[in-house]
Amino acid sequence: MSKKIVIVGGVAGGATTATKLRRLDEQAEIIMYERGEFISFANCGLPYHISGVIEERSKLLVQTVKGMETRYNIKIRNYTEVKSIHPENKKITAQNLKTGETFEDSYDVLILSPGAKPIVPPIEGLRSRNVFKLRNIPDMDKIKSYLDEKKPGNAVVIGGGFIGLEMAENLAEAGLSVTIVEKSTQVMGPVDLEMAAIVEDHLRANGVELILGDGIQDVLDNGSEVLLESGKSLKSDIIILAIGVMPENGLAKDAGLELGERGGIKVNGHLQTSDESIYALGDAIEVTDFVNGKPTMIPLAWPANRQAHIVAHHINGKDITYPGTMGTSIVKVFDLTAAVTGNNEKTLKRLGIPYEAVHIHPLSHAGYYPGAEAISLKLIFDKKTGKIFGAQAVGKDGVDKRIDVISTAIKGGLTVHELQELELAYAPPFSSAKDPVNMAGYVAANIMDGMFETIHWHEVDELIANGGYLVDVRTDKECANGCIAGSVNIPLDELRDRLDELPKDKTILITCQVGLRGYLASRILSQNGFRVKNLTGGFKTYSMYKKYHQ
Amino acid sequence: MSKKIVIVGGVAGGATTATKLRRLDEQAEIIMYERGEFISFANCGLPYHISGVIEERSKLLVQTVKGMETRYNIKIRNYTEVKSIHPENKKITAQNLKTGETFEDSYDVLILSPGAKPIVPPIEGLRSRNVFKLRNIPDMDKIKSYLDEKKPGNAVVIGGGFIGLEMAENLAEAGLSVTIVEKSTQVMGPVDLEMAAIVEDHLRANGVELILGDGIQDVLDNGSEVLLESGKSLKSDIIILAIGVMPENGLAKDAGLELGERGGIKVNGHLQTSDESIYALGDAIEVTDFVNGKPTMIPLAWPANRQAHIVAHHINGKDITYPGTMGTSIVKVFDLTAAVTGNNEKTLKRLGIPYEAVHIHPLSHAGYYPGAEAISLKLIFDKKTGKIFGAQAVGKDGVDKRIDVISTAIKGGLTVHELQELELAYAPPFSSAKDPVNMAGYVAANIMDGMFETIHWHEVDELIANGGYLVDVRTDKECANGCIAGSVNIPLDELRDRLDELPKDKTILITCQVGLRGYLASRILSQNGFRVKNLTGGFKTYSMYKKYHQ
Ligand SMILES: Cc1cc2nc3c(=O)[nH]c(=O)nc-3n(C[C@H](O)[C@H](O)[C@H](O)COP(=O)(O)OP(=O)(O)OC[C@H]3O[C@@H](n4cnc5c(N)ncnc54)[C@H](O)[C@@H]3O)c2cc1C
Ligand SMILES: Cc1cc2nc3c(=O)[nH]c(=O)nc-3n(C[C@H](O)[C@H](O)[C@H](O)COP(=O)(O)OP(=O)(O)OC[C@H]3O[C@@H](n4cnc5c(N)ncnc54)[C@H](O)[C@@H]3O)c2cc1C
Ligand SMILES: CC(C)(COP(=O)(O)OP(=O)(O)OC[C@H]1O[C@@H](n2cnc3c(N)ncnc32)[C@H](O)[C@@H]1OP(=O)(O)O)[C@@H](O)C(=O)NCCC(=O)NCCS
Ligand SMILES: CC(C)(COP(=O)(O)OP(=O)(O)OC[C@H]1O[C@@H](n2cnc3c(N)ncnc32)[C@H](O)[C@@H]1OP(=O)(O)O)[C@@H](O)C(=O)NCCC(=O)NCCS
Repeated sequence: MSKKIVIVGGVAGGATTATKLRRLDEQAEIIMYERGEFISFANCGLPYHISGVIEERSKLLVQTVKGMETRYNIKIRNYTEVKSIHPENKKITAQNLKTGETFEDSYDVLILSPGAKPIVPPIEGLRSRNVFKLRNIPDMDKIKSYLDEKKPGNAVVIGGGFIGLEMAENLAEAGLSVTIVEKSTQVMGPVDLEMAAIVEDHLRANGVELILGDGIQDVLDNGSEVLLESGKSLKSDIIILAIGVMPENGLAKDAGLELGERGGIKVNGHLQTSDESIYALGDAIEVTDFVNGKPTMIPLAWPANRQAHIVAHHINGKDITYPGTMGTSIVKVFDLTAAVTGNNEKTLKRLGIPYEAVHIHPLSHAGYYPGAEAISLKLIFDKKTGKIFGAQAVGKDGVDKRIDVISTAIKGGLTVHELQELELAYAPPFSSAKDPVNMAGYVAANIMDGMFETIHWHEVDELIANGGYLVDVRTDKECANGCIAGSVNIPLDELRDRLDELPKDKTILITCQVGLRGYLASRILSQNGFRVKNLTGGFKTYSMYKKYHQ
Repeated sequence: MSKKIVIVGGVAGGATTATKLRRLDEQAEIIMYERGEFISFANCGLPYHISGVIEERSKLLVQTVKGMETRYNIKIRNYTEVKSIHPENKKITAQNLKTGETFEDSYDVLILSPGAKPIVPPIEGLRSRNVFKLRNIPDMDKIKSYLDEKKPGNAVVIGGGFIGLEMAENLAEAGLSVTIVEKSTQVMGPVDLEMAAIVEDHLRANGVELILGDGIQDVLDNGSEVLLESGKSLKSDIIILAIGVMPENGLAKDAGLELGERGGIKVNGHLQTSDESIYALGDAIEVTDFVNGKPTMIPLAWPANRQAHIVAHHINGKDITYPGTMGTSIVKVFDLTAAVTGNNEKTLKRLGIPYEAVHIHPLSHAGYYPGAEAISLKLIFDKKTGKIFGAQAVGKDGVDKRIDVISTAIKGGLTVHELQELELAYAPPFSSAKDPVNMAGYVAANIMDGMFETIHWHEVDELIANGGYLVDVRTDKECANGCIAGSVNIPLDELRDRLDELPKDKTILITCQVGLRGYLASRILSQNGFRVKNLTGGFKTYSMYKKYHQ
């Protein structure tokens, strides 16, 4: 007999599960509830219609109610909110939000993909008319008409996560003066401090004001002033609240389903909740971190789409599991791209997992071919086994490719040595004969193999303060343009002839522009009996952070 | 005691081995012989200086003799050709090409990276002044000054491999009328016929004339006329010969080293020749095909660079091997990119290895975000095990990324099912929530799992001629713009209501634009008791080839 399947939520997770269920079973009765007007819309495109980069609003409506009903023979109840679940008799109560009518429906299988909602701190002034969040089409419409009608000049974006950054960019594109306020000391939480610094630099270069390490204290005067915890005050014609999201766990909680520590719905490998007739997926669930195995929350579109596949297949009898989420993510910030996969240093440190990190700054493609741009690439790995924990990249070109390749390598269980062996497509417009990912593999493997030892940007100042001896092997000219305070300059090409200038009794620290010449110097020195450590990423990584964080 | 290492060839393989040897051993005596003036130049950039896309010639000189001697303490003998090897007493004979002087040198270890030379058929007219090959800086200089001085109007490029295509593009950029003559029935041998057809279409759209399936018979009238095997004759103010390369195996052969069937120097996993004191690498060697395990020749820069690493390490006592070459390669052709990794259909067919292939045409990034371009992606795999044999992609954007990801997946031993699980970076400017690579995985896995059966573009005409029943499930409007002769049109969204129009007694063939709606139709039909097969890649793949090959 055919199953009756009820889905709560009609966008990324919900709609994708619905269509897959239909492909697997022509006979199933599939009913999808969505409290909003729109199903299957492109959440991720919302910020770009606000600036007009995406011109036509209709393009964001990937599927319509009618379109999906016809093509997939699915019953769609939009404008209808599921109010409660009664697992004991497999029923739900729902309300038609247009008529106010409440009714019951039954299910054999229930699927929850209710998503996550923007976090709103308990500050009265956030109810002002000029304060907006961005989750769905109506939210977007409201912001867009406010811009059109009120022509605000100053925008304050609260939160420097990826939605905050995209909103800052798009408001700036729309002609506003934008200030981002971020409580932590960096934007873009998924990357580490020094990588975020490149993004911060670029935001400032594009006219966005950035206030880090400061939170919102109050919103005054009908929203026209934002008061920060530091006492600082900002003019705000419009305020965008984007400090993160929290899972829509109300239904699940009330139904007695198990929740995780941070409120995500708990699921097993098949994405079943604590009631095996109820599946959950998407932003609302707690997932396993693919790299470290710990529970986490990763509200992104890829996981929702993938989980939809697992849920639909498992309901149809396939023994399939979701192996966890890696957290691969990416954001465009003006001309810059920042992307990340796997775990960052902050996470590994917090979990007490030992790791090593390298920084390199290769070009996106052959330097002699026009348009090559530097990529700052950070690779984090296990120094003992070579296991790749994660990677981060920031640059103007080719960032997405390198992160995708490393994400694939992590999935394939490849080690840093095996990154060397990736045979990546090379012609001058696309890469170099050793691709940046290969190069990261070479550098990381050299550390594992004891070819050189490394120090990190955040260790340098203290090492020098404690009497460390730092040699900068760049040319005199390069050093004249800026160098680390306290360094001695011996250009690499003179090193072999000037060994007698160096102390034999202490570890020599080396730096150069990006780490490559420092490595060559390390090899020369260590084979001549010196103890040496090379600054990974060189002066470039060191100054990325220093530039704005003195 | 320190080793004396002699290297023959000073560019990709040779120079890279030299620098790595030095990093591994400060004491070794390293001598590099190069018969030309230049070492370490960017072979791959040569075509782009001819058009002026790479403006400065000096940019192609990645390292100079002086620069490398200073930095790496290597003895470099350029303008010096190694004439013979005497393995029995570990000596070479070399000749200074400037003075004519011949001398001997000894080695503990000898490394051969002499590269490959352009194939020149035995046609007298090819000695004409306006006939050029392109291998090195002097070759490039000659072509460039011929263009500057003689201002030729018509160019004939003989050979449609990647150097031929790059030359065609760059000569066209330089303002010439270009004709490519290619003996086989397609350009770009590493991809299959229907994929090459997209490139061919684009060449024609950019004003390049293309003559396929025709070879050069003679060159007449001091090179001003090219006579083809078909009898056709072409005006040729300048002729570029690019029909492929052959290994520079003379030294090795004369020294009695083992050669492969097609002349490549035979090496073991450590890249040692049949004389273990002599290593060989780069374009001159025979390698193992990473996918099918058979010997092959793959003259590309990545392998040369990687092999350099293996050779240098093995000489220094590390037990390291080269696992073979996958043949990942890429070419820019005007606004188009074509790339490939692993084995193509032609190769698998030749070797009698059973395979399945799917075609998809996803967008490079979210369709609603500006600038999305279709990618034609072909995935070839083992239907039994899901092992990935290879992939090919052609499109204007994002092609390199997808091929690199699949190449990485092949290295990691991932199956087509696991391509679904790749967690690739998604935001609207970069990809879709299901990346094209994920999508290829979904489609291929569906075939393995029996979700649908497939037919291929090259089977359709014959099937219809033999009475096959083909349903096109696109809209009437789409079909009116062109469809496969003999097809019946039933739009997908009407299918469930029109099942009674379909024959129950024979296999129904389905097509649509790209294969997606055909798949949905297949699911509906097969669950309603019909036998169905879906045309992979749909009308788009079918017509890619048909367009110019009636
Ligand atoms: C502005 C913005 C930009 C984004 N950009 C990106 C990006 O670039 N890349 C990326 O990977 N991710 C991005 N995301 C995140 C991505 O959209 C989400 O991860 C994804 O949509 C989650 O899918 P979901 O099904 O869990 O939730 P949603 O897609 O949010 O769908 C949940 C739906 O359930 C409905 N619902 C909730 N409760 C009920 C109920 N009780 N009854 C009926 N209906 C209910 C809601 O109305 C909602 O429409 C972005 C999100 C936003 C808001
Ligand atoms: C125009 C062009 C474009 C290319 N584009 C690409 C591309 O986009 N992507 C890609 O992957 N590959 C490309 N390649 C191929 C790539 O350059 C080669 O695969 C690579 O250079 C091979 O390295 P090698 O060391 O084997 O040979 P080479 O780099 O050719 O070096 C061999 C050197 O040895 C010298 N030599 C030979 N015999 C002797 C002797 N007896 N004594 C002294 N010296 C000797 C030669 O003079 C030569 O300089 C291109 C090649 C060309 C010519
Ligand atoms: C519109 C929507 C319902 C479509 O979901 P979908 O049906 O899973 O996705 P697609 O239309 O891309 O089709 C994918 C299916 O077609 C198949 N397919 C794709 N191209 C194919 C081809 N050329 N040949 C054969 N099959 C093909 C795939 O195998 C897959 O089927 P499977 O899952 O059964 O294996 C869903 O993506 C959605 O709601 N999107 C908007 C919301 C959202 O995702 N937001 C977050 C991002 S902004
Ligand atoms: C110029 C040439 C000799 C340089 O070769 P190379 O020394 O191997 O290459 P690079 O300068 O890129 O340096 C790579 C080394 O630096 C290290 N490195 C790179 N960036 C680093 C960084 N930021 N920190 C530390 N080490 C770094 C790598 O680990 C690698 O060392 P390893 O091989 O010992 O592991 C060689 O590439 C060449 O001749 N090229 C032109 C010819 C050619 O390749 N043609 C075909 C393509 S056009």
